[in-house]
Amino acid sequence: MKLGEIARQLNCDLRGSADLEITGVAGIEEAKEDEVTFVSNPKYLSKIQSTQAGAIILSPEAPDTPTATLVSDNPYLAFARAIELFYRPPKPPPGIHPTATVAESAKLGENYCIGANTVIGEGVTLGDNAILHPNVVLYPQSEIGNDFLAHSHSIVREHCRIGDRVILQNGAVVGADGFGFAPDGEKHYYKIVQSGIVVLEDDVEMGAHSCIDRATVGETRVKTGTKIDNLVQIGHGSLVGQHTILASQVGLAGSTRIGDHVTLAGQVGVAGHLVIGDRVTATAQTGIARSVEEGKIISGSPEMESGLWKRNYLLMHELPQLVRTVKGLEQEVAELRKKLPSDRTDN
Amino acid sequence: MKLGEIARQLNCDLRGSADLEITGVAGIEEAKEDEVTFVSNPKYLSKIQSTQAGAIILSPEAPDTPTATLVSDNPYLAFARAIELFYRPPKPPPGIHPTATVAESAKLGENYCIGANTVIGEGVTLGDNAILHPNVVLYPQSEIGNDFLAHSHSIVREHCRIGDRVILQNGAVVGADGFGFAPDGEKHYYKIVQSGIVVLEDDVEMGAHSCIDRATVGETRVKTGTKIDNLVQIGHGSLVGQHTILASQVGLAGSTRIGDHVTLAGQVGVAGHLVIGDRVTATAQTGIARSVEEGKIISGSPEMESGLWKRNYLLMHELPQLVRTVKGLEQEVAELRKKLPSDRTDN
Amino acid sequence: MKLGEIARQLNCDLRGSADLEITGVAGIEEAKEDEVTFVSNPKYLSKIQSTQAGAIILSPEAPDTPTATLVSDNPYLAFARAIELFYRPPKPPPGIHPTATVAESAKLGENYCIGANTVIGEGVTLGDNAILHPNVVLYPQSEIGNDFLAHSHSIVREHCRIGDRVILQNGAVVGADGFGFAPDGEKHYYKIVQSGIVVLEDDVEMGAHSCIDRATVGETRVKTGTKIDNLVQIGHGSLVGQHTILASQVGLAGSTRIGDHVTLAGQVGVAGHLVIGDRVTATAQTGIARSVEEGKIISGSPEMESGLWKRNYLLMHELPQLVRTVKGLEQEVAELRKKLPSDRTDN
Repeated sequence: MKLGEIARQLNCDLRGSADLEITGVAGIEEAKEDEVTFVSNPKYLSKIQSTQAGAIILSPEAPDTPTATLVSDNPYLAFARAIELFYRPPKPPPGIHPTATVAESAKLGENYCIGANTVIGEGVTLGDNAILHPNVVLYPQSEIGNDFLAHSHSIVREHCRIGDRVILQNGAVVGADGFGFAPDGEKHYYKIVQSGIVVLEDDVEMGAHSCIDRATVGETRVKTGTKIDNLVQIGHGSLVGQHTILASQVGLAGSTRIGDHVTLAGQVGVAGHLVIGDRVTATAQTGIARSVEEGKIISGSPEMESGLWKRNYLLMHELPQLVRTVKGLEQEVAELRKKLPSDRTDN
Repeated sequence: MKLGEIARQLNCDLRGSADLEITGVAGIEEAKEDEVTFVSNPKYLSKIQSTQAGAIILSPEAPDTPTATLVSDNPYLAFARAIELFYRPPKPPPGIHPTATVAESAKLGENYCIGANTVIGEGVTLGDNAILHPNVVLYPQSEIGNDFLAHSHSIVREHCRIGDRVILQNGAVVGADGFGFAPDGEKHYYKIVQSGIVVLEDDVEMGAHSCIDRATVGETRVKTGTKIDNLVQIGHGSLVGQHTILASQVGLAGSTRIGDHVTLAGQVGVAGHLVIGDRVTATAQTGIARSVEEGKIISGSPEMESGLWKRNYLLMHELPQLVRTVKGLEQEVAELRKKLPSDRTDN
Repeated sequence: MKLGEIARQLNCDLRGSADLEITGVAGIEEAKEDEVTFVSNPKYLSKIQSTQAGAIILSPEAPDTPTATLVSDNPYLAFARAIELFYRPPKPPPGIHPTATVAESAKLGENYCIGANTVIGEGVTLGDNAILHPNVVLYPQSEIGNDFLAHSHSIVREHCRIGDRVILQNGAVVGADGFGFAPDGEKHYYKIVQSGIVVLEDDVEMGAHSCIDRATVGETRVKTGTKIDNLVQIGHGSLVGQHTILASQVGLAGSTRIGDHVTLAGQVGVAGHLVIGDRVTATAQTGIARSVEEGKIISGSPEMESGLWKRNYLLMHELPQLVRTVKGLEQEVAELRKKLPSDRTDN
């Protein structure tokens, strides 16, 4: 594709030759002369001098470079769109694969691609443009919106409701039973039937092997635009706000309420029945044991403000010395006291 | 269903109208006038004044309320049973789905429901009343008891043995290879064939995508009534006791021995070859690096008694001040020493 | 099998009767008189006195024992090979199961065993001796070497490349979409198509439900001989070196570079864009927030050298006392100062 055409499609100003032939997209260190790359983070700007790329997507503030430049207010977003010009993920052929099993009572929208061995249960409703890769299972009575993309081995359990443009990566599980057991008085656990559902609103993406449990009663809900990485656990009855990021291996216990625009980094855990305010950020491995006010940045297990946590981390390196200092002071003070013998008698 | 009938089926005393029509079960804040709810934890008792529920399941000690009341010694357990009156999870139709693959040498009990694409290998034995959702795989020679419930994509590997009333949530894996490699002297790893099995005793439940590895030789065993949440890892050769709770994302390394009535909260890790005594409780994210005596409550990574851990957590907030205090003391003591010049010469 | 024959096949010296009939392999505490066991770790050598085993694999340095002995320079490796003499894991019958779906454009090598419901997409290439258990999915255009072993529900996504002798345990996912989103300026997240691939070099093993994400552009790569346990997450664009061990529930964020012969113990997390040098060892639950030089042993979250971390852990137990000591010193110093009243006036 000509660079000029790429500029037009990405709605970027072009500095350089519109006739340059571009065959793909690559990182700044790997890009070759027929590839386009980008720099978004200012700390990588120095690399625009050494890149072999044929063209770079840059912000208007970036320094000049002899390399052809596509100027964008949001170079990262423009890069994302550039990738789409060159790569189209595969999907199953249109229609229903002969080995798929679709219940007669299921209602399918228009324009579906349903892969081998995929199972669509009784009473399922599925919107338009659904792409279901092989071996997906939609349990009975699940309701799914338009433009659904389900990768192999993803599962939607009974009665769960999914909005438009939702993506399930491989093995994502929507609506397995919540972890609910009632002690029966003899320290045995009696299973509580999980009769609630999971609701995924529009534009949610779930990573590979992530699990969102159905509620005991009522619902577990993930709101619009929230993105969930791989191997994440969301316990029953939780509510996750809009446009929130849950990185890989995050775990939310039951009845957790997470706000909008929250970011929980990798391996963060949140105890049950807490409220995490909007725009909270928790750094990796934070263990959140109490509710957190909106806008806080937290770290540690249990959590504290990140500033304190960083200071303490540095102090940990001084802790052995601190203990020695205190011991030394004890001795010195004892000696000083001895040297004031007259004071003693004053008491 | 009439409230009187519900009271009868749950074996509860009824205070209020037996004729009230109830259509479902809900949480205390969401319940409507035709729904029944419950309060078990005394700290939520205040909510019985504001609930819209038609009836509440309460303990005999709960304060009086104008709302109709079902009196139970174990309101939580009664609530669990109430859910069953209104919700019946779906299961595949009786018999074997035409797309399922059942080996001729497999021995099936009575009254099975085997879903689409499910695979039952050579020599498998399966007890009565088995419910296998679509895309389950039972590897050859696995032995499974009565009332087995296996959700889609759960797997039982070769030769593993499963008791009665076991439930596998979606993607649970019983008996994948343990993580065993022998260094060959050149820092390469030689795979050790994992020839042992997994044994799940009666009434075990495994959550979605949890993994229990087969032993190298011998067995990995989970004892009666133990409940395992999602994304849990149990390493090869481990033994988990009876009526124990492993919350989501817990990881047990190999050859771990966990006692009876233990509770490991979310994201707890246990190193290999340890012994965790009966009734131990570990709070979320605890990293257990040494064996733990029965009855202990532990926290932290590595673990310590929870009381000490909480005290230290509070002290962490004072740590910056502590360091400043010690520095101040050093100066003061140095000054004091200077002010005792005659003492110096005494030494 | 006669013990003499076992000695011959394992290339061990035999001390004892070559005619002893051995029927299997077991751990030192469980082994019976017709089984062979081993001791590799010197701290278990005392158990050779009490074992019931018919024969023990021991190093030349081990003390003498009346039990028949197979002498090996690497008893653990010899034990691994002994298991292979007695246990052969099952595999699907040769050929393609009638319920499997193999695209016409797929190129299969010789001698394959392809199980029920397994799906091989368009343009896949598969080397010789492939064993694919039921319900495996190979997406279009994936390229796989010889001696591939894929357990049920494992997945290889489009265009990914896999070397020889690679093993995927149940549910392992090679090449799901990386977690890449571009903020669109209104705090919404725009999905970045993940056009890159995953490359697994020769002799890699992936545990159950582990996930290795495809790169945004370029590749995510795991080098020769690296072994990955269950429920591990490897973010997009990462590079994992040769003969490295990633234990269960380890998580690597994106663009992480892990060296050769590294060991990351259970639940370790590594932040993005870091470089972890060769032969680094991180103990369980370490949270790695900065790059680590080769050969270091690290612990804690965030990480520090293990020696300091252990010292600090012990000091944590003294922390409450330390705080009390400092408070006591403050009082004492204040009293001492009072007792030097003349000094005050000097200032």
